[in-house]
Amino acid sequence: MEATFKKGKVVLDTSLFVNPDVRRAFGDSPTQALENFLFMAAQVPIMEFYMPPSIFKELEHFIHPQDIPGELLVYLHQKPPKKHTLQTPAFLLYELIEDIRDRVNRGLRVAERAVRSTEHRRVEEIIQDLRRKYREALREGIIDSKEDVDLILLAMELDALLVTADQGVIKWAEKLGIKWLVPEKFKDYMMGLIKKARFMVSPEAQS
Amino acid sequence: MEATFKKGKVVLDTSLFVNPDVRRAFGDSPTQALENFLFMAAQVPIMEFYMPPSIFKELEHFIHPQDIPGELLVYLHQKPPKKHTLQTPAFLLYELIEDIRDRVNRGLRVAERAVRSTEHRRVEEIIQDLRRKYREALREGIIDSKEDVDLILLAMELDALLVTADQGVIKWAEKLGIKWLVPEKFKDYMMGLIKKARFMVSPEAQS
Repeated sequence: MEATFKKGKVVLDTSLFVNPDVRRAFGDSPTQALENFLFMAAQVPIMEFYMPPSIFKELEHFIHPQDIPGELLVYLHQKPPKKHTLQTPAFLLYELIEDIRDRVNRGLRVAERAVRSTEHRRVEEIIQDLRRKYREALREGIIDSKEDVDLILLAMELDALLVTADQGVIKWAEKLGIKWLVPEKFKDYMMGLIKKARFMVSPEAQS
Repeated sequence: MEATFKKGKVVLDTSLFVNPDVRRAFGDSPTQALENFLFMAAQVPIMEFYMPPSIFKELEHFIHPQDIPGELLVYLHQKPPKKHTLQTPAFLLYELIEDIRDRVNRGLRVAERAVRSTEHRRVEEIIQDLRRKYREALREGIIDSKEDVDLILLAMELDALLVTADQGVIKWAEKLGIKWLVPEKFKDYMMGLIKKARFMVSPEAQS
C-alpha cells in the first residue's frame, strides 16, 4: 500500500550553511553543515527540500562544487519558481514603491552629507564612506535581489516552509502568508521531523 | 429595448489636462481642457471615463476645486483600484527589482561625482545640482509613485484604455497587456467615438 499523505516542503536559503552564527548547530564549516543537513534529510522521507538555483549558485561561493556531495542533488531539489505563471497581490507593488521612495530619499541625504563633509576630509576617504553608507541606506531590509524574489516565490508556489535569516525576505513572507523559520531553529525542527517520520511512516511508504 | 453591448472604458491621467504641450488640442488652460473634455464625453454614452482619486487630487493642484464643473463627477468616475483583490504577474517583481538596482547604482555615481567636484565649486551649488541629478537618475522612466500604480491597476481591473504621457506607466502597460494611448491622440479618439456613438446607439439606448 502506498502512503497517500502529501509531503511537506521546505525552501532553504544559503544562510543555513554559510553564515557562521547561523550554521553553528549544523557544522563548523559550510561543507560540514551541508553534510550534516544531508544526513538528517535522508532520515525524513516525509519532507522535500528545495533551493532555487540562483541561491545554490551563491552556495558555490562558499563550498567548492567538488566538495558538494552527489546525494545533495537527490535530497535538495534545485527548482526555480514559475515566475511567469505565479501571481502576487497588487498591494505589494504599493509597498515596494513606498519602500523605494523612502530609501531613495535616505540615499540623497547620505550623498548631501558626504558633499558637505569635503571641507574637513580627504575626497577618497569620503567616497569610501559614502559608498558604504549609501548601500546601507538603500539596501537594508528591502528585497533587493533576484535571489530574494526567487526564495519568496518558490516558497509561495510550493506552499513550503521558508528557512531564512534575511530580514527583508521574512518581511515579505509575512505579507504573503508564507510560513518561515529562522535557521537557528532548523536543527531542532529537523530532529522533530525525524521523530515524526519514524512514528508515522511505514517501511513500505518509505521506499 | 435596452442596449446590451458592454461599454468601453477609459482611464485618464492628469497630463491630458495639465501638461501644456499635451492638452493643446483640448484647451489653453486646465479648466478649459476639462470643460472641453466634458463637452465631448457627454456625447459618448458608449464610453465610461475613470480617474483614480489620487490622480484627481493631483488635478486639483492645477484647477481650483470651485472651478471643476459638477458634471465632471458624472462623466469622470473617481475609482481606486481593488488593490487587495487584484493580482499581478510575479515576473514584474524581478523587473522592478532589477530596475531599482540599476537606478541605485546610478544614484551612487551621481553622488560620487558631486563629492569629487567640491574642489572646484561652492558646496551649496553642488548640493542643488546633486539633488536635481540624483532625482533624475533614480526616477526617470520608473514607476515611482502610488499614483502611477493606481493608474496601471485601475486600467488593468477595468480592462480600460489608459491615456497617459508618463513613460514609466506606458512601459508597465506594455508589460501587462494594457491598452494605452498618448494624450495627444485623445481628441481624435474622442471625435471618432462621437461619430461611432451616433452611428450605433439608438435614442432609447442613450437614455
